Amino acid sequence: MKTKLSIVKIGGNIIEDEQGLSYLLELFSNMDGLKILVHGGGKKATEIGNKLGIEAKMTNGRRITDAQSLDVAIMVYGGLVSKKIVAQLQALNCNAIGMSGADGNSIVAHKRPVKEIDFGLVGDVDAVNSNNISSLLNAEFTPVFCALSHDGKGQLFNTNADTIAAELASGMSTQFETTLYYCFEKQGVLQNIDDENSVIEHIDSKKYNELLADGVIADGMLPKMHNCFQALQKNVKQVCIGDSTMLQGTTTNFTTLTL
Amino acid sequence: MKTKLSIVKIGGNIIEDEQGLSYLLELFSNMDGLKILVHGGGKKATEIGNKLGIEAKMTNGRRITDAQSLDVAIMVYGGLVSKKIVAQLQALNCNAIGMSGADGNSIVAHKRPVKEIDFGLVGDVDAVNSNNISSLLNAEFTPVFCALSHDGKGQLFNTNADTIAAELASGMSTQFETTLYYCFEKQGVLQNIDDENSVIEHIDSKKYNELLADGVIADGMLPKMHNCFQALQKNVKQVCIGDSTMLQGTTTNFTTLTL
Repeated sequence: MKTKLSIVKIGGNIIEDEQGLSYLLELFSNMDGLKILVHGGGKKATEIGNKLGIEAKMTNGRRITDAQSLDVAIMVYGGLVSKKIVAQLQALNCNAIGMSGADGNSIVAHKRPVKEIDFGLVGDVDAVNSNNISSLLNAEFTPVFCALSHDGKGQLFNTNADTIAAELASGMSTQFETTLYYCFEKQGVLQNIDDENSVIEHIDSKKYNELLADGVIADGMLPKMHNCFQALQKNVKQVCIGDSTMLQGTTTNFTTLTL
Repeated sequence: MKTKLSIVKIGGNIIEDEQGLSYLLELFSNMDGLKILVHGGGKKATEIGNKLGIEAKMTNGRRITDAQSLDVAIMVYGGLVSKKIVAQLQALNCNAIGMSGADGNSIVAHKRPVKEIDFGLVGDVDAVNSNNISSLLNAEFTPVFCALSHDGKGQLFNTNADTIAAELASGMSTQFETTLYYCFEKQGVLQNIDDENSVIEHIDSKKYNELLADGVIADGMLPKMHNCFQALQKNVKQVCIGDSTMLQGTTTNFTTLTL
């Protein structure tokens, strides 16, 4: 039987909220078993970028990562946010170690191919180095990943944190029984977007297609759910979506996804 | 017999120089055996700090680290410089992992006590967690340390990179036979500051005291040499001072210090 591994992705709004982040990190540090944390940078990167006079470049409403914006992402995700989370986790006796995809050659990617848009220095993931990450887990470290990958030839890339989490979860599934937790500000996937109490407890492939057809899953939830089902198809055991309290293990008030 | 461990500190001027840094990283990646790299941030932190409108605070000519300057150090040392070095080392097949003193609880420090000057968020090192760092080395990772320590209670600190290197070298000496390399732009400790070819090949405690008395060791070299001899007194086997070529192992044109 494979050892269990929890991969917890924390959303941008939680990172923005100092108290909310502390609460989440405390719950995370108390989780039993092997675990990995994944974070982006919230709005901090935009804020620092603006202060440095680096304008966010957009094409057809999509953000482009040029060399300067990548430097900001490296500073904010890989530096400021990562190291502060690590220092807080250490204070909670969680032996965290902050990682980009370059550290330990963990997440190898290639520049996203140019179709209608050249996204710039954005990486699409090719491989997760599960052996190196397992070495860290087995040595009792808790990896904390930010939203950066690399090409193995010296180039770092911006890669969406949801994607990093999903790729890590499927990549680690060769060696572990993996559960992926997406923590955000809502209690789960809502049947009715205006009713916070309408959390759908369980979604399988059949239900997913129904919800898609009914338009219940829309907007920002679409790529997130697509990522989740892709991860499940790549051997992730289950995906849980909810707020920080789901990490406590005493509530079932969140959404569980299985194939 | 203890396993050998090389700890290489790279100076700020090398980090500033893209070609010089690439050359050094290539030589470092080719070094046999277990190794650790230590770097500061060069002038990049000042440059980014200025752009962000954060003025370097000085008291009696000494730099003070307030919360904002610490954030810049975390972004630049722990983010930009660290991750770029790691990505470059990975391209050279060196399995690097970027670390602050908080990562893996590696370097624990306390805020420097206030005497004449309150240096702010500057950490004086209490302990190096040699077990955690050994775990990484034994798992075939190459730790790359930046100039940041932490107090284990959630606070990061600025700590001089020379000091980080010396503390790591002495801390790791309980388990390894440690050599500490200080790489900078000169070929070694010079007998005559105006003659680049006047490298002193070997300095032991007796010679050190003579050089101090004669005023040959002065200015910026004083704290550096003091650090070196402190490290030697704390069981570091030898300290080497010179330019990048000393890492090649084919030249003896650098300064070796022993007790």
